[in-house]
Amino acid sequence: MSGEEAPTQQQQPEQEKTDTADESTPAAAGAPQESGSSPSTEEKPISWRSVVLMGYGGYDKVKLQVKTQNKPQLKAGEVLVCIKACGLNFAELLARQGLYDLLPAPPVVMGMEGSGVIEAVGESVEDRKVGDRVIVFSRSGIWQELVVASANSTFPMPEQMSFEEGAALPVNYLTAYMILFDVANLRPGKSVLIHMAGGGVGIAATQLCHTVEEVIIFGTASASKHETIAQGGVTHPIDYRTKDYVEEIHKISPKGVDIVLDPLGGSDTQKGFGLLKPLGTLIVFGAANCVTGQRKNLLAMAKTWYNQLSLNTLKLMQANKAIAGFHLGHVSEELISNTMHKLLELYVQGKIKPHIDSCYHFEEVGDAMRRMHERQNIGKIILLPEPKKKDEEPKSNAEPAEEVEKNESAATEKKEDASEEVKEEKD
Amino acid sequence: MSGEEAPTQQQQPEQEKTDTADESTPAAAGAPQESGSSPSTEEKPISWRSVVLMGYGGYDKVKLQVKTQNKPQLKAGEVLVCIKACGLNFAELLARQGLYDLLPAPPVVMGMEGSGVIEAVGESVEDRKVGDRVIVFSRSGIWQELVVASANSTFPMPEQMSFEEGAALPVNYLTAYMILFDVANLRPGKSVLIHMAGGGVGIAATQLCHTVEEVIIFGTASASKHETIAQGGVTHPIDYRTKDYVEEIHKISPKGVDIVLDPLGGSDTQKGFGLLKPLGTLIVFGAANCVTGQRKNLLAMAKTWYNQLSLNTLKLMQANKAIAGFHLGHVSEELISNTMHKLLELYVQGKIKPHIDSCYHFEEVGDAMRRMHERQNIGKIILLPEPKKKDEEPKSNAEPAEEVEKNESAATEKKEDASEEVKEEKD
Repeated sequence: MSGEEAPTQQQQPEQEKTDTADESTPAAAGAPQESGSSPSTEEKPISWRSVVLMGYGGYDKVKLQVKTQNKPQLKAGEVLVCIKACGLNFAELLARQGLYDLLPAPPVVMGMEGSGVIEAVGESVEDRKVGDRVIVFSRSGIWQELVVASANSTFPMPEQMSFEEGAALPVNYLTAYMILFDVANLRPGKSVLIHMAGGGVGIAATQLCHTVEEVIIFGTASASKHETIAQGGVTHPIDYRTKDYVEEIHKISPKGVDIVLDPLGGSDTQKGFGLLKPLGTLIVFGAANCVTGQRKNLLAMAKTWYNQLSLNTLKLMQANKAIAGFHLGHVSEELISNTMHKLLELYVQGKIKPHIDSCYHFEEVGDAMRRMHERQNIGKIILLPEPKKKDEEPKSNAEPAEEVEKNESAATEKKEDASEEVKEEKD
Repeated sequence: MSGEEAPTQQQQPEQEKTDTADESTPAAAGAPQESGSSPSTEEKPISWRSVVLMGYGGYDKVKLQVKTQNKPQLKAGEVLVCIKACGLNFAELLARQGLYDLLPAPPVVMGMEGSGVIEAVGESVEDRKVGDRVIVFSRSGIWQELVVASANSTFPMPEQMSFEEGAALPVNYLTAYMILFDVANLRPGKSVLIHMAGGGVGIAATQLCHTVEEVIIFGTASASKHETIAQGGVTHPIDYRTKDYVEEIHKISPKGVDIVLDPLGGSDTQKGFGLLKPLGTLIVFGAANCVTGQRKNLLAMAKTWYNQLSLNTLKLMQANKAIAGFHLGHVSEELISNTMHKLLELYVQGKIKPHIDSCYHFEEVGDAMRRMHERQNIGKIILLPEPKKKDEEPKSNAEPAEEVEKNESAATEKKEDASEEVKEEKD
């Protein structure tokens, strides 16, 4: 059953008019404007690149498109951003398989986070101006060269922050911050288990744990990542692929841990719950165990579903433990905005700093997804709208893929059908 | 099926030797001693009163006994406390019905908290001395005139604290504090739903909420208690008996609340979970809905069990909510000790102050239990080891019982079999 694919929608021809699939950040065009909304005189179509999910399935469902369109009319409160870098998240791997319900139906421009420069501002926008370097956060629609966004969903970047860092910040750091400080109650002396400690959220959580005194961090990752995550602040790196992490943690801390960050789901949630100390909290914020092959795997989903922790309240009382679910997509804009400002402050203070694993150009989005799928990345994978230059050097600052052991689940699927999945289309 | 009773154990004759049913606080005797453990020369039996659970069932299973016994030999680290006041808790109502698994099997001296004066100290006890006024906290064994306890489970009382206040502090305030600050993460501006807001934990939680800025408190209680709980700090008192509290809360706060304290269980847990805002936490710390009549009610238990919230982790993620269980009996001694010191500091600062509902003598323990069972109390019910004097005035400073409406569930059982359930036995 591995690799079973959901029905895919037929690939659409290049769109010529405004894409309305995503209301929150409609695809938009615009040459730099000085200020204010412009009357629709002298309209001149312009072109820009975007990464579009055409249907559910493998890497081949994600296409680079070049759209040509009239200049957009900004509404009051909106800004036009020229995107310089975007973040890739695990949610996009789920979304491509049809497993992420907050992404509008295909065809849709993917992407939840990016950074760039403001090219135009609509009416009533007072705290942003043309030329501002900003981070943009939205539910979708960010993986394109030009994005129309509400000014409220943009955040001015500190001077010393690179575009890659800006694009790497929102999803991973908002998730880690809210889990540690809004859902759980991280305080001095507590212990935390971070799964996938070399991933984007894992590295963010490790850095944020260190903003609190004497926190002990257990981090699971394959052995090749241990040196990096230990340098990053993980107290006890554990190779989950050669050792039983429950046993390893019990050897070091017989009573277990205070907080478990669980992006995996399934049987790992049960193990994590068992590892909690009394008054401890487990937070489930993903179902990475659902994702094995390149396409939706019904068997993996069924296993994850079957093995998920089911609880009743009497059991929770007897155990004296808490279990929480977290989904950034359901958090209020107000809390996101407040937390983004705290994170930017922590960045300026030097307490957090996104770790960039690698940068891929839009036309390489399939390779970028595969790198994350196979858990080869340490830190954030970035997508760049700018076309790749000929003879450009490899974009990863991590170990070459050959030297990194593959995740066992990812390794179950052959890679042969994953080549050439992204085609550049021009009109 | 109402009032179905578990098999009860035969009542035992008066014991003459040391009661060994409860290891953590063995029943103990002792005239005041100067210090240290005394050699067992010149032993002279002494007598003291205690409240003993003889078997599971109605109020008649709780007996006042007078024990006569040799002076105990204190072990190293132990102290002998002459108890002046004890606290009654809902757990003792559950325990009498055989529904509290942490109480040793009957016959057993009940009681988890009390206050009194140290009469003797064992070897190696350096920070307690004869004459110290202390609070004592244990899993059982406190409802007696003389208690042998580990010095570590005693806490020196501030000068201005009465014995009644000291006895009222541990269970209610430890529970409320840990729920609000260790399990949930109460912070400025948050909203909290407190069920049974006129009860011991309810009043403690209300006071502790006010140690944080701008917390909004919704409190359920029968209408007769509203004036008192509003004065105590409940922002929005709600009469759960004449109104749907879910509707009432939604009228005031359409998005719901951040924290729900749930001592009820069953369908109320489901309602509470529904009331949570995203990132909110519900804490289940009791099953008061199980207790309807005087004896174990299998139907009420089945209903509570059937209606309890069952959750899987995917549902939690979609809801973006947390659910926790809390049981003071499973908390480490270290955390209890640390929290007691924080609570005593808050008392000295005038930020918390136990509200004493009424005081009953040991021989009136059945009346005391009935008052709590029928939810007539506002605040703490205290038990006094000292015998009741003839012509003593009524001991309650709350409304006379006749004027307080009865809880509907408690009212389903006739009171006639509850008279004369406590008999004083002397040898």
